[in-house]
Amino acid sequence: MATNLFLSAPEFEEGFQALLGQKRETAADVNAIVAEILAQVQARGDEAVIEYTNRFDRLSLTGGHDLRVEAEEIEAAKAAVDAETLEALKLAAKRIEAYHAKQKPEDQYYTDEAGAELGFRWTAIENVGLYVPGGLATYPSSVLMNAIPAKVAGASRLVMTVPTPDGVINPLVLVAADLCGVDEIYRVGGAQAVGALAYGTKTIAPVDKIVGPGNAFVATAKKQVFGTVGIDMIAGPSEILVVADDRNDPAWIAADLLSQAEHDPVAQSILITDSAEFAEAVEQAIHSHLETLPKADIASASWRDYGAIILVEDLSQAPALVDRIAPEHLELCVDDPEALSAEIRHAGAIFMGRYTPEAIGDYIAGPNHVLPTARTARFSSGLSTLDFMKRSSLIKMNADSLGRIGPSAVRLARSEGLDAHALSVAIRLNMPE
Amino acid sequence: MATNLFLSAPEFEEGFQALLGQKRETAADVNAIVAEILAQVQARGDEAVIEYTNRFDRLSLTGGHDLRVEAEEIEAAKAAVDAETLEALKLAAKRIEAYHAKQKPEDQYYTDEAGAELGFRWTAIENVGLYVPGGLATYPSSVLMNAIPAKVAGASRLVMTVPTPDGVINPLVLVAADLCGVDEIYRVGGAQAVGALAYGTKTIAPVDKIVGPGNAFVATAKKQVFGTVGIDMIAGPSEILVVADDRNDPAWIAADLLSQAEHDPVAQSILITDSAEFAEAVEQAIHSHLETLPKADIASASWRDYGAIILVEDLSQAPALVDRIAPEHLELCVDDPEALSAEIRHAGAIFMGRYTPEAIGDYIAGPNHVLPTARTARFSSGLSTLDFMKRSSLIKMNADSLGRIGPSAVRLARSEGLDAHALSVAIRLNMPE
Repeated sequence: MATNLFLSAPEFEEGFQALLGQKRETAADVNAIVAEILAQVQARGDEAVIEYTNRFDRLSLTGGHDLRVEAEEIEAAKAAVDAETLEALKLAAKRIEAYHAKQKPEDQYYTDEAGAELGFRWTAIENVGLYVPGGLATYPSSVLMNAIPAKVAGASRLVMTVPTPDGVINPLVLVAADLCGVDEIYRVGGAQAVGALAYGTKTIAPVDKIVGPGNAFVATAKKQVFGTVGIDMIAGPSEILVVADDRNDPAWIAADLLSQAEHDPVAQSILITDSAEFAEAVEQAIHSHLETLPKADIASASWRDYGAIILVEDLSQAPALVDRIAPEHLELCVDDPEALSAEIRHAGAIFMGRYTPEAIGDYIAGPNHVLPTARTARFSSGLSTLDFMKRSSLIKMNADSLGRIGPSAVRLARSEGLDAHALSVAIRLNMPE
Repeated sequence: MATNLFLSAPEFEEGFQALLGQKRETAADVNAIVAEILAQVQARGDEAVIEYTNRFDRLSLTGGHDLRVEAEEIEAAKAAVDAETLEALKLAAKRIEAYHAKQKPEDQYYTDEAGAELGFRWTAIENVGLYVPGGLATYPSSVLMNAIPAKVAGASRLVMTVPTPDGVINPLVLVAADLCGVDEIYRVGGAQAVGALAYGTKTIAPVDKIVGPGNAFVATAKKQVFGTVGIDMIAGPSEILVVADDRNDPAWIAADLLSQAEHDPVAQSILITDSAEFAEAVEQAIHSHLETLPKADIASASWRDYGAIILVEDLSQAPALVDRIAPEHLELCVDDPEALSAEIRHAGAIFMGRYTPEAIGDYIAGPNHVLPTARTARFSSGLSTLDFMKRSSLIKMNADSLGRIGPSAVRLARSEGLDAHALSVAIRLNMPE
């Protein structure tokens, strides 16, 4: 039974604060173990990578040449995938590419009224590393969502690492990588993969940025190599917030809530509605769906421990609550989602109207499914083409424009006690010391 | 005497690698001290903030009301600042605002050929915290560079913390904050300021993102609160790379190199030139400038320990070296800087031509002076308006468009074993289980 809160009840604020403050992550302290693995990879390169890989993934690789997934394996994977799934993957890739192409930023260069030429220029990050988890959490859709924006940005080299425990790899992951134009694939996982991507080995040339989800070892390793390379956000367990009136089919909304709950026992699904009767119907539909869902164990634990239904008197009260929750995924299952959405500031992705289940965004709509969790939508965004680009400022002065604004720079530099700064401007203007 | 490297010499690669690999940061391990301060601030709020502030800054504050810098103090600061410096600060603020306004991103919303309505929407981060160092490194220009982009982005609340050791504060810092529309100023520094901004206290309401430079305690505290709030990059010591032919005045180039060297004994200044004679003249001009510069001790230590002159045969060889260095600041002191710049991918800011000393960008040109250091320009950008905004994806399907692409989502969800995902789409399409 999920938490039930009533906005008009006196104890609401306390219950809502408790909901917001829930710790859904087990912060395993693996700092020391990860630091040792990274140090070994940095010092001994391929040798260390192979040792850890053989130990953790129960393999018997003998040299750097064994690390690379070869073209024949990728061809074999393609042959193993059914045509219908391959077509779906291709449609997803095409749509994700089209959406992320719209995110490409434009350069600017202009001359202002002082005669200064100013602007900025975007360039791609050259070498991108993509971490893909092995085992149960190995999702081809994640390969598309991480690799395609990098390619759209213009990355010149895209390197994927994926652990293959007992030599097993999901063929769909290889097919997805191939579809996206991944240039190199290595059968390595964990902190050792992150170390190899960050520091480079004889076999794996280093990258400039590492993206992709992973377990506590991978997340910790990414934090530790940050600075040597760039990293993406560290994602927490998934969340959905559904705002729905009583003119929805409770079975649809129940399915949406369960689609997050089935990810993880610590995933979180919240419903905000203005109808107690509808809330009750959704709760019943959840239990009805759970009877047949393969991942019912996970989903029911998530709904029981972290699920919540918030009853409001009027849906106009929803936006303030949404902003406090700052959800990763927000569904607005109402007739006029635009009006409601205009009142909302913090959400990773907004799914508008009754026919936009969150899952459509996980796979095929086009926008990225890597989104800010754990209330970080207050200050961060989903993965985008911009995450694979960086910007250089451009400044060009001439004798005239420097003469107009330079003296103010000299003044400010001197006020900060930075006389060489002042000198570098003054000397070009023949200004007195 | 700076390092001298000759691109054509057999030992170049070894020397260049050593230059790139130089550790210029003393990584003081203050993790445990900072964790304790943050825990105290989180648990005891104002009380802990006041205790630490009284101890570290030698003050005798008695309650939360003492933390806030009041309007009268700001008025007094305005009266204490000379008119010419105030005018220079105002010109800088105006120009920085104009440049950062050009960085404001545009929303998109479009309907694609499948009938899906897709887009994204940018919104401002609501509450921004700005850390300003006390003592020697308290720069009014940094206040402008951090606060103005937040205001341009549309932040609704801008909170500044600045330590006041022995009660002393630079009036220019208060004036700069006032100019930028900073809403609240508190006399707190160190990890305790970061803790107060991240967790909030009775006096200081929490923020969503913390930006601004600081010492090892501040940088470590920012890393530790990351996730609870957003943070900006952790900046290292400053750097400049000047590419110059022999038709520059050696005294100008020497001043430019020294303008970084005077920041810090571990700052780094590098010259790439195609003329041995010019290199020699610059080296001499550096020593000549050092005779009169107030910060000669710092600048000469920096130039001696980390300065470098790289001699190439032709400046067309420079871009490849520039990209390997990925400098924070790059000056292209040549006749056709556009041609050279087009060959370069990695630089925080590019200063084009002979009349664009780096210092003009520190103060008055308009672009941000918070830029990626330590080769991180390979994967990151200077501070910008975008750093104070976040993006929500928007997706709207209807029965028809969901019917067109939904079945592929169902297929992919099932291939990943996520049946509730599949159900949430299939149920809306009356698809068979």
